[in-house]
This record gives sequence, C-alpha cells and structure tokens, in this order.
Amino acid sequence: MTIEVEVREVAQRARVASRTLALATRAQKDATLQAMAEAMLARAEEILAANAEDVARAEADGTPANIIDRLRLTTDRLEGMAQGLRDVAGLADPVGEVVRGSVLANGLELRQVRVPFGVVGMIYEARPNVTADAAGICLKSGNAVLLRGSSSARSSNAAIVTVLRDAVAASGLDADIVQLVPGDTHDSVKALMRARGDVDVLIPRGGAGLIQSVVNESTVPVIETGVGNCHVYVDRSADLDKALAIVLNAKTHRTSVCNAAESLLVHADVADVFLPRVVAALQAEGVTLHGDDAFGAFDGVEPATDDDWEREYLPLDLAARVVPDLDEALDHIRRWSSQHTDAIVTEDQGAARRFVAEVDSAAVLVNASTRFTDGGEFGFGAEIGISTQKLHARGPMGLPEMTSTKYVVIGDGHIR
Amino acid sequence: MTIEVEVREVAQRARVASRTLALATRAQKDATLQAMAEAMLARAEEILAANAEDVARAEADGTPANIIDRLRLTTDRLEGMAQGLRDVAGLADPVGEVVRGSVLANGLELRQVRVPFGVVGMIYEARPNVTADAAGICLKSGNAVLLRGSSSARSSNAAIVTVLRDAVAASGLDADIVQLVPGDTHDSVKALMRARGDVDVLIPRGGAGLIQSVVNESTVPVIETGVGNCHVYVDRSADLDKALAIVLNAKTHRTSVCNAAESLLVHADVADVFLPRVVAALQAEGVTLHGDDAFGAFDGVEPATDDDWEREYLPLDLAARVVPDLDEALDHIRRWSSQHTDAIVTEDQGAARRFVAEVDSAAVLVNASTRFTDGGEFGFGAEIGISTQKLHARGPMGLPEMTSTKYVVIGDGHIR
Repeated sequence: MTIEVEVREVAQRARVASRTLALATRAQKDATLQAMAEAMLARAEEILAANAEDVARAEADGTPANIIDRLRLTTDRLEGMAQGLRDVAGLADPVGEVVRGSVLANGLELRQVRVPFGVVGMIYEARPNVTADAAGICLKSGNAVLLRGSSSARSSNAAIVTVLRDAVAASGLDADIVQLVPGDTHDSVKALMRARGDVDVLIPRGGAGLIQSVVNESTVPVIETGVGNCHVYVDRSADLDKALAIVLNAKTHRTSVCNAAESLLVHADVADVFLPRVVAALQAEGVTLHGDDAFGAFDGVEPATDDDWEREYLPLDLAARVVPDLDEALDHIRRWSSQHTDAIVTEDQGAARRFVAEVDSAAVLVNASTRFTDGGEFGFGAEIGISTQKLHARGPMGLPEMTSTKYVVIGDGHIR
Repeated sequence: MTIEVEVREVAQRARVASRTLALATRAQKDATLQAMAEAMLARAEEILAANAEDVARAEADGTPANIIDRLRLTTDRLEGMAQGLRDVAGLADPVGEVVRGSVLANGLELRQVRVPFGVVGMIYEARPNVTADAAGICLKSGNAVLLRGSSSARSSNAAIVTVLRDAVAASGLDADIVQLVPGDTHDSVKALMRARGDVDVLIPRGGAGLIQSVVNESTVPVIETGVGNCHVYVDRSADLDKALAIVLNAKTHRTSVCNAAESLLVHADVADVFLPRVVAALQAEGVTLHGDDAFGAFDGVEPATDDDWEREYLPLDLAARVVPDLDEALDHIRRWSSQHTDAIVTEDQGAARRFVAEVDSAAVLVNASTRFTDGGEFGFGAEIGISTQKLHARGPMGLPEMTSTKYVVIGDGHIR
C-alpha cells in the first residue's frame, strides 16, 4: 500500500468518526476531555519513557540544546498538558451556536448555526505538547484530527496518541477522532496536503519554512499561522517611560514566540532622548541591535540590511531604525511587516487613530506590548495558533474559529 | 512584458488603490455607487454597442441560443444592473463593524473589527451583469477588484469597466479599484491564480469545470462557489401536497441556477401514492426523469446511473429514487450531494431534527423549496455567490462575507 493510499484511508476513517463526534453532546465531549487528562497522568511513565527515546536520539544526532529543551517532557509539562485538556472541557461548546437568526418576511425561519469542519490536519514541529492541545481543541469543536508532528518527536507523539485514543474509546466515542498520520517522511506530509475532499482544513504550526511549504503545496485549504515580524513604533508624542517598558517587554519577555517584537521604529523628534535609554536597556538584557545610522552611532550596534528589516529573528536580536514621521513608519510597516502584530506607543489620539486604521495586521496595538496577541491573553481559553491570513480567521484562533456554519431554514410548504 | 508581469502590475495598482478605499467613508462609497449607476444608464448606448459585437461574434461562432441569451444586454438588463448598484449603496457598510469587544481583566480594551480583504479577483463566465455586480459589492466592502470575465463577453466587460472606472474617478476615488485582468487567454487566468501576495482572495463563478480548475491551480486562497447537486427528500410522513409543490418549484421555477433541485428521493411508504402524482406533474412541466426501478415503471422515465446521482443537470432533468428509510436517504445525500442545499419534506419533528443535524450542507431546509438558498431571499440585499466550502464563508455570501477582521487592542503602557 502506498503512503498516499494509507493517508487517504486514515482520513476516511477520521471522516466516519467525525460524523458521530459532530452529534456528540457537550457533556459527552467534556467527559471525554476529562478522561483524556486523567489518562495522560495515569500513564505518565509510558509517555516519559517514549519521550526519553526521542531525547536520546536527538542528543545522539547533535541537536542543539534549545531544540532538545522543547522536545523534552517532564512530569510538570505532562501536568500542564492535562490541565490544558481540562481547561478546554470548561470552555463553551461552539457547535450549535446560532450565529444569526431571523424570521423572513414570508415566514421562513432562518438560522446560521456553527458546525464542525469535519476533519482537521495539523502539521507541527518539535513540541509534543501540541499533540494533546490540538487533540483537545479539535475534539471540543467537533472535529476529528490527523496529527503530523515532527519525526524527532515520533515516539512521544505515538505514546500520547495511544493514551488519548484509549481514553476516547473508553468514553464511548470513536477512537479514530484522534489519529497519527502514518509515515514520517515528507511523502506522508505531502499525501496529507493532497487529500482534498478527505481533509477539510490544514493548520501548519512551526517555522516559516514549514508554513511556506504547506501553503504552496497544499490543495487542502490551509490556515496560515504564526510568522511574526512584529513592530513597535515609538511616536514623537510617546510617553517614553511607557515606550521603554513596552519595547523591553515585547522583545525580552519571552523569545522564540511569534508575538515577540523584531523591529523597533523611533520618531526622529524623540531619538536624541530615547535612543541612549533604549539601547542601554536592551543591551543590558543581552539584546543585539541591528540598526540604521542613528542607532549605529552606539557601541555594539550592528548595521542593518534589508534582511534585518524582513526577518523574524526569534532570539535576542532586534532591528532598529529612526523614521522622520508617522508616514514613514507606516510605509516601513507596510513593506516589511508579516501582518501579525504591530504596536504604536503614543499619547496623540490622531496618531493612534491613523495607525489603527492604516496598519493592515491581524492585531494592531496602542500603548501595549506585542506579547498580548495571544488566545489566552484575549480570553479565548485555548488557542490552536495565530492566523496571519485574512480568510476565515485572523489573529488568535479559539474554539469558534475551528468551526464552519450552515444555514437551517424551516418552512411549512414554502415555494418561490 | 509577459502576461504574468502584466497581471502582477495590475494587482499591485489595485493594492495601492485599495488602501485609499479602505479608509473611505460610507458616504463616499455610496455616492460613488450612485454615480456608477447613473453612468451605466447615461452611457447605455456605448455598452450596448460593445455587447452587440460580442453577440455577433458568438452568433458567428455558432454559440447555442441559451448562452447567447445570457450574454445579451438590453436596456432592461442595464437598468437592472444600475438598480443593483443603487441597492448596494443602500446596504449597511460592513467595514468597521465591531464583531466583538470587551475590556480584559488587566484593563486592555479589545475589539475585533471588520476590515476589507484588500484585493479580490473574480473569475466568471458569460453573464456581463456580474461585472457591475461584483464591482459594486467589492467597492462597498472596501475591496479593489480584478475582473476576469469570459473572452466571449470581452467587449461588453471592457465597456462596462470603462464606464465604471470613469464614474469612480469622477467621484474622487482611485479608478484602479475596478480593473479588468489583461489578456484573454488561459495564461492570464493562470497568472491571476498565481499572484499570491498581490491578490488576497479569488472567487470563481461559473460551471463545475471552471471552479475545479481554479481550486486545483490557484495558490491564492479561493472561495469555492456554486455547484449545486441539490436534493429533495420526501419523507414517509410528508404532506404530499406540500411535497409536490416543493419538488415542482425546486426543479422548474428556474433552471440553470445552482439552487435548483437535481435529485428527488421518496420514502418507500409513500411511493405508491406519490410517484404517479409527481411523475405526471413533472413530465407535464417538461422534466425528463432519470429514475431507479420504481420510477422506471413509468413511461418516459430513463434509467438512472451513478452519473445521474452525481450530476448537476441545470436543464429540466431530475434524478429520482425510492429509498427504504431516512437512513438510506441520508446515506444517499452523504455520498452524492455537492453540499450546497438539501431539503426534507416531513411533518415528523424527529425526522426533521435528524435531517438538519446529519446533512452536512451549506443550507439544510425543512418543508421549503431549495430555491430559497439565495442572498436576496435570505435578506442579505446583495450576493457575490454561494460558497460551498467550509472555510471563511458557507452559503450565500453578502457584504460581511467579503471582509476579514483585525484585532484592535488599546492600552496605557500595558506589559506582560
């Protein structure tokens, strides 16, 4: 059997399972999520042993320490994954929500109702916690999920999925609502991307390379996530204390996340006062600046190229530039932003209003750190990723974003 | 200059124009729509002369009469197109609508706000009225539009776009918010489908072949529209008078439309009574039935094959089958429906409830004709097409479906 046929078969089993899941009550789904959480902890040893195999293999391959850290599971991390599943159980069920409804002039009752997509494919990199997170969010939103993690985490993912499937089956739902995609070569990812009709939506989570390849090769509709070249623009009328705190927080609060700042723009009128403060504060936190001429006047600042304006560094690097006015800041953001999150620091209502209107990004912030673009911070309770595309969902995606809708029309013999 | 470069340049001009359009007030947009409507009528002769060229060319090519009828413009049809533009002016502006908003626990103000996509590509067949309709809907929803009609309507489309662009420019907006895609070979369609980054969304409208080719070849996100293999299922507990009226209306009220019925399923318990009535009534309206054995017992009914269960006939043909129970009806629909619109006729609440829950189509109707799946009937005021996909929009698409959203977050120096 070729890998394509194998992947199609797995997807078709998911489709069949998705039909019963779509009809499951919230109570059934929540009980299943609680059982999944309990099983993760009850069978922690089994999962940790499998994870130790992945870690040993990664170490033998000379994998960098920060990647191994992302791969490694601990009792604490398993507890976090279990708590994530319980948290999802506590969230409202999006399925069946009436998005809009009315009685038409002719007496027809019209309702637009949330329904699951059906079968969701997840393609993701190193972190095995995504396996449990995605299974939980998909289950609650009524979707069967096909999980394709990185081959470096294959033992961990297989163990987690085994535990979750057992818990699903024991709860009386079809275990095939949670499945691993067979194979661990690129061919199996490719087969998943071509399973149009059998898979309703693909969500890639990971680096820019992974996401680009899925977007380009997939015939299944994709929700693009996550690459964040996020900007902080410090306006001429900014409160510079707030600006300093926001820039530091946005860059250094947590690195390697998509909502961290990667570029700093400063209005020329405040450069003389602000640059010495911000450069010193950032360098004290270990940040390497890649700057224009104005920033380049400071020790330790490297010269910036177009590549710096474009990059999502992730580690402690920051591109930095002085702009003559708001127009130039907007032009810079228009040209280089990945349209994830961009922030202005200003006390000027007119500047804030223009920035909000003209910056075409998933999230536009005024006087707040870019780090706030997050499903948890926004109060969604769970997040499957942050969409940077305009179709379907934009910004942090919670449970409602994991659904489609259908129109239900009730008449009494109505004809046109 | 290659066609690819030409198309990219047109799209990039559309992007620039879309930025000013996104900031236009409703008053500006409505005044422009009124000016477009007036210009269509004031310059009717010019448009009709161009249309006469298309019609003459089609006649010389031996094009079938029904296609020529769709191509032909008349003073009445122009008046209808102008009225369509005025109607769109009367609709609420979706841009800026706050979809949800709250103040977070930390005091951050969060709003999710509707914003235009940016640049929309329309690929459509014969009817030149789509040119004006699409331009109007895109303008009101803040999107620049790239129009790619069929080459058979090229003179008409060019004349309409010239008139509309002049009206847009005279109203003070950038004429490049309405543009024809250059070239009239498949290469130019292909270039549009590959203009990812420059074009935000593609909407194909037309036959199954057109839509499939766009879905398969496009790297630009696509909203799939319109193929409708719509079913009417007459349940054992149906009121057979209502059922007869609904079947006749669904099939014969208007043919060649995607919400016309293409398949009829009848519960075995009512077949003896209902089949003679429905067959006679349909045949009296000129419908050719393609039936299973039960329907085949009637004169003039042709035997149905799998191809009949699958097809969207559009003309006066109908596939027809007797099913032993609701389960088999649901199975048939699951296997063959194009997931556009499916209807049940029943007086049984339990059967209605199951049908609504288990049929996974954009619209599911109870005791009403499939012909009601329509933006106008649903009260949307304008419709750019009917989406049969699950991502972003499903069912009739009005103005809100032509937008994306962004999150606006206002703080006062907030950091994490």
